[in-house]
Amino acid sequence: MRNSLADRFGIEHPIFGFTPSEHVAAAISRAGGLGVLGCVRYNDPADLDAALSWMDENTDGRPYGVDVVMPATVPDEGTPTDLAALIPPGHKDFVERTLLALGVPPLPGTAGSGVLGWLHSVARSHVDVALAHRPALIANALGPPPPDVIGRAHDAGVPVAALAGRADHALRHVEAGVDLVVAQGYEAGGHTGEIASMVLVPEVVDAVGDRVPVLAAGGIGSGRQILAALALGASGVWLGSYWLTTTEYRLGDGPDTVQRALVRAGSGDTVRSRVYTGKPARLLRTRWTEAWAQPGAPEPLPMPLQNLLVGEAHRRMMLASDPDVVAMPVGQVVGRMNEVRPVAEVMARLLAEVEDARSRVWRAHWGGD
Amino acid sequence: MRNSLADRFGIEHPIFGFTPSEHVAAAISRAGGLGVLGCVRYNDPADLDAALSWMDENTDGRPYGVDVVMPATVPDEGTPTDLAALIPPGHKDFVERTLLALGVPPLPGTAGSGVLGWLHSVARSHVDVALAHRPALIANALGPPPPDVIGRAHDAGVPVAALAGRADHALRHVEAGVDLVVAQGYEAGGHTGEIASMVLVPEVVDAVGDRVPVLAAGGIGSGRQILAALALGASGVWLGSYWLTTTEYRLGDGPDTVQRALVRAGSGDTVRSRVYTGKPARLLRTRWTEAWAQPGAPEPLPMPLQNLLVGEAHRRMMLASDPDVVAMPVGQVVGRMNEVRPVAEVMARLLAEVEDARSRVWRAHWGGD
Repeated sequence: MRNSLADRFGIEHPIFGFTPSEHVAAAISRAGGLGVLGCVRYNDPADLDAALSWMDENTDGRPYGVDVVMPATVPDEGTPTDLAALIPPGHKDFVERTLLALGVPPLPGTAGSGVLGWLHSVARSHVDVALAHRPALIANALGPPPPDVIGRAHDAGVPVAALAGRADHALRHVEAGVDLVVAQGYEAGGHTGEIASMVLVPEVVDAVGDRVPVLAAGGIGSGRQILAALALGASGVWLGSYWLTTTEYRLGDGPDTVQRALVRAGSGDTVRSRVYTGKPARLLRTRWTEAWAQPGAPEPLPMPLQNLLVGEAHRRMMLASDPDVVAMPVGQVVGRMNEVRPVAEVMARLLAEVEDARSRVWRAHWGGD
Repeated sequence: MRNSLADRFGIEHPIFGFTPSEHVAAAISRAGGLGVLGCVRYNDPADLDAALSWMDENTDGRPYGVDVVMPATVPDEGTPTDLAALIPPGHKDFVERTLLALGVPPLPGTAGSGVLGWLHSVARSHVDVALAHRPALIANALGPPPPDVIGRAHDAGVPVAALAGRADHALRHVEAGVDLVVAQGYEAGGHTGEIASMVLVPEVVDAVGDRVPVLAAGGIGSGRQILAALALGASGVWLGSYWLTTTEYRLGDGPDTVQRALVRAGSGDTVRSRVYTGKPARLLRTRWTEAWAQPGAPEPLPMPLQNLLVGEAHRRMMLASDPDVVAMPVGQVVGRMNEVRPVAEVMARLLAEVEDARSRVWRAHWGGD
């Protein structure tokens, strides 16, 4: 399934894998795809630097990418302390009451300051650190990065990707200088719009024409779906959720609560909600998301306040052991994530399935192989 | 793109076209697909009989199907008058006030009784009339029909199809004796669930195995999307919305308000709402659907009361001439419906696009033709 996009990135297959784990990202790159490390969880740039140094040593010289979260227009921001003062006490009370009701224990050590990668200044430091490692791609999960960031990436010879949930957003990204558009459909995990991949992907492909290639994201976790994405006009695929149940996916030494929750979930067990970051994102539906959907629950706060509000709660749930109470972005493809396997095996199976799907479709409809 | 499913139905291409217009249905069958006439709008079985007799004369001997709306379990129902008494006066007031505010004129003649095809007794009469015309398919838009209806269709040698928005529903349909499952994704027009086609289609295909073929429905209006559906494991496609902007689509002698509204709409201009029938259905987003989404608007009533409530309002809007105020089920594929063309031309273009998509994908990824 090699194609010109894969050749351009120096990878074997046009399969891009987004993941917050450097272990998963490195394994994806080693398996012939492009592992893209999500940076948002690195509050300290030195930690990101260490992770990328580790990846430099553990990717057998294969390319990898990084993903930041950076709005094109710079929001007002202050220090974490200033921002925390903007969170209404009623919201804090609701979070505490809910965690108590759901039986989530407090953190064992001292509380941290939430995930700060949603802050513009922190994301910018991620770009600085990343560029020094000469990644094969800088992707931005919130549309095009600011113009100067695109310029600096290009000066360093690094192409820039941006996610789009609508064709007009994709066009805006291309006009801003983005080199690769990720068309992310409604069914995707994390930040996602209303338009499903079946409609969105060809619409984005038609909108951007031959100016930039398009990756399909959302709902993909089988060779049939990869072939469908190519049929829709995508030059490759972007998988995020699907790596969450790989053997290599383990953030820290916590329990495997999240993977247990994911493995048993069906495609109908997700919800699109503003609970996680303040913007609509698809999450696993759990007692935590349900609590926010009850009458009387507060409205989620705007980004970046919502994540500051719930960051500690999320860590508490992550370290607890109840799969009914987790906070986890994941797409509808979770219904297909039914076992924990190594990345190399996942990738090999995807590639074999693409070939199977191709010959099945050809035989059934065109009588050939 | 002939395949074994097409052979089984005696059609040239596995493209099933649902439409409330006998003119469109006949044209789809003449063009080599299977036109499926939606019966819900025929309050009087004699009118359906006349429409099917017309189709018998105007399909060049090609097969066609019919689509009824029949829940598997028989709901309590009464006469239209009994049912009307169950509609709260506040709901009627809201409809009248809204129509006044939106400038929708009253009907020129006497008011009718709403669309009764949602009633079980009426749907059953549709089945009786349809079977006498020996259709190639009876489809049910609400899951499997009641067991005796499946039995009678089978006795008459007529296969039965049912729509499913979840894999477990599809399995239930197969166990009820259904011969063909239509996997209808989130992006589809009309009644639709939460799971998008990219995820739903392979999930349904895996669930039903080789017991029955699966059609993909939702979001399809190009050859790329048809090829994607086949890649996902479907044996064919079911298109509904896409025929609404054909030249043959005209219910009665009304103005072309609805087509004008559809042609200019984008993929983001739909909404999933209970306004139309009482069950979640995707509609064009207009000032009418927005009025129901305002704070203070009443909750839609359960089926069949909601349609009795709004039936006359829908006819009033249909006969008016404001494309901002229409009530029309349509899928996200509306963004691709940008001109009014004859069915034969639509079908020819779809087929040519499938071949284009196939050779493009093969060349780009496998170096062949």
